[in-house]
Amino acid sequence: MEIVIIGTGNTATVLGKKFKAAGHRILQVFGRDAKAASQLAYELGTESNTYWSVVNRHDELYFLAVTDIAIEQIVHKLQLPDKTIVHTAASVSKNILQPASTHYGVFYPLQSLKKEADHIPAIPIIVDASDEQTLLQLEALAGSISGHVVEADDEERMKLHLAAVFCNNFVNHLYTLAEKYCIDEGLDFTLLIPLIQETALRIETISPSQLQTGPAVRNDEQTIEKHLQLLENHPHLKELYRVLTSSIHTASY
Amino acid sequence: MEIVIIGTGNTATVLGKKFKAAGHRILQVFGRDAKAASQLAYELGTESNTYWSVVNRHDELYFLAVTDIAIEQIVHKLQLPDKTIVHTAASVSKNILQPASTHYGVFYPLQSLKKEADHIPAIPIIVDASDEQTLLQLEALAGSISGHVVEADDEERMKLHLAAVFCNNFVNHLYTLAEKYCIDEGLDFTLLIPLIQETALRIETISPSQLQTGPAVRNDEQTIEKHLQLLENHPHLKELYRVLTSSIHTASY
Repeated sequence: MEIVIIGTGNTATVLGKKFKAAGHRILQVFGRDAKAASQLAYELGTESNTYWSVVNRHDELYFLAVTDIAIEQIVHKLQLPDKTIVHTAASVSKNILQPASTHYGVFYPLQSLKKEADHIPAIPIIVDASDEQTLLQLEALAGSISGHVVEADDEERMKLHLAAVFCNNFVNHLYTLAEKYCIDEGLDFTLLIPLIQETALRIETISPSQLQTGPAVRNDEQTIEKHLQLLENHPHLKELYRVLTSSIHTASY
Repeated sequence: MEIVIIGTGNTATVLGKKFKAAGHRILQVFGRDAKAASQLAYELGTESNTYWSVVNRHDELYFLAVTDIAIEQIVHKLQLPDKTIVHTAASVSKNILQPASTHYGVFYPLQSLKKEADHIPAIPIIVDASDEQTLLQLEALAGSISGHVVEADDEERMKLHLAAVFCNNFVNHLYTLAEKYCIDEGLDFTLLIPLIQETALRIETISPSQLQTGPAVRNDEQTIEKHLQLLENHPHLKELYRVLTSSIHTASY
């Protein structure tokens, strides 16, 4: 497939590289930041441009990997009749692209992408499209770089993103709080990393609802009380400890 | 080293196997449940017993891997002058073992151990002891099965366990809530597993405080509002979403 990439951030970079590695041809990289655009273009073996325009080959796909707010701004500058245009945002309706083309859709990577990362993790792709032909095209593109491709509409995609906020953003925040607690108490946070990784790896084969352990789920009031005492000088952590312990008690394990 | 194992649960089983694999000799397995004790003894190439008694070889170590409550009950039945006795509990003082022997300590595995698991993860070991000689003995034993051995006293060990509650128990609970949400909404939770694993793997090289992403940390009020609307029928999740989003806002990322 021939692809025009709009954007130079993490999503544009990681997916651009995956497209190239899968044998697709990147025709051009558009980006407001000339340096970032030329750097990404260089990595993808193509050229760059700082203003939006139609490349106008045959049936190239316009891949809009920019922030939620930038999507709408860019769409109104693009007139792409007969071209396919997609965005990569979880929480933006596919219909935002309607002014630009009759063939449009969404190509949402359900993964945390970082352009600096050495390894590229597995990336489930959630696709949606304006019509059957575009859907098939996006499924083929997604299937060329991922083993997990599913179709989901605007609302389903947003719900998956919401679930991801719990599993990724909130979880990383708990890691951060635990790290800060360890630093404050003179303890080595890296001792917890094997446990953190085991917790995440284990759910690949067993439902997390079968894996809950710890003082809350076994109603070990004595340990909970000791922990709350240890958090006397950490009122924010103490409050979170109470809220999450109570949430575990409420859930039906 | 010659080791007598008391207990037949996850800790006794996983560490017993690691001791055997490291070349130590298991002299006997004690357990109230005769079947569990004989099964573990079989796996460890030794014999089992259902009542507590001193094996009385030369300098065998008594490895007490039982629940917090059982430790005290058992200690009063054991008189082991000149023998080393250790327990494996995070939240129980080492001094609980004083009535049984003059040489005692703690051998706490900072990992979630499951006897059914196919693979055994890395297991940091936190040791503590009544005296220098016992400490050296425990460090040698721990070093024979783990690359991460650190000394920590009762309070430090309890604090590490508290940090582990945040990183393991609370995190697994968030996974569980996300899974339930997906089931309720007809979505496939397994799509989130690559993201969950990437989130846990990445902190090996970068501090989680550098990795926070999502609507809360970027003050994306529009997405937060959409998410709260989507949680209208999930009041408990909605409340947790608010609490954790506010906690991210409070933290200094």
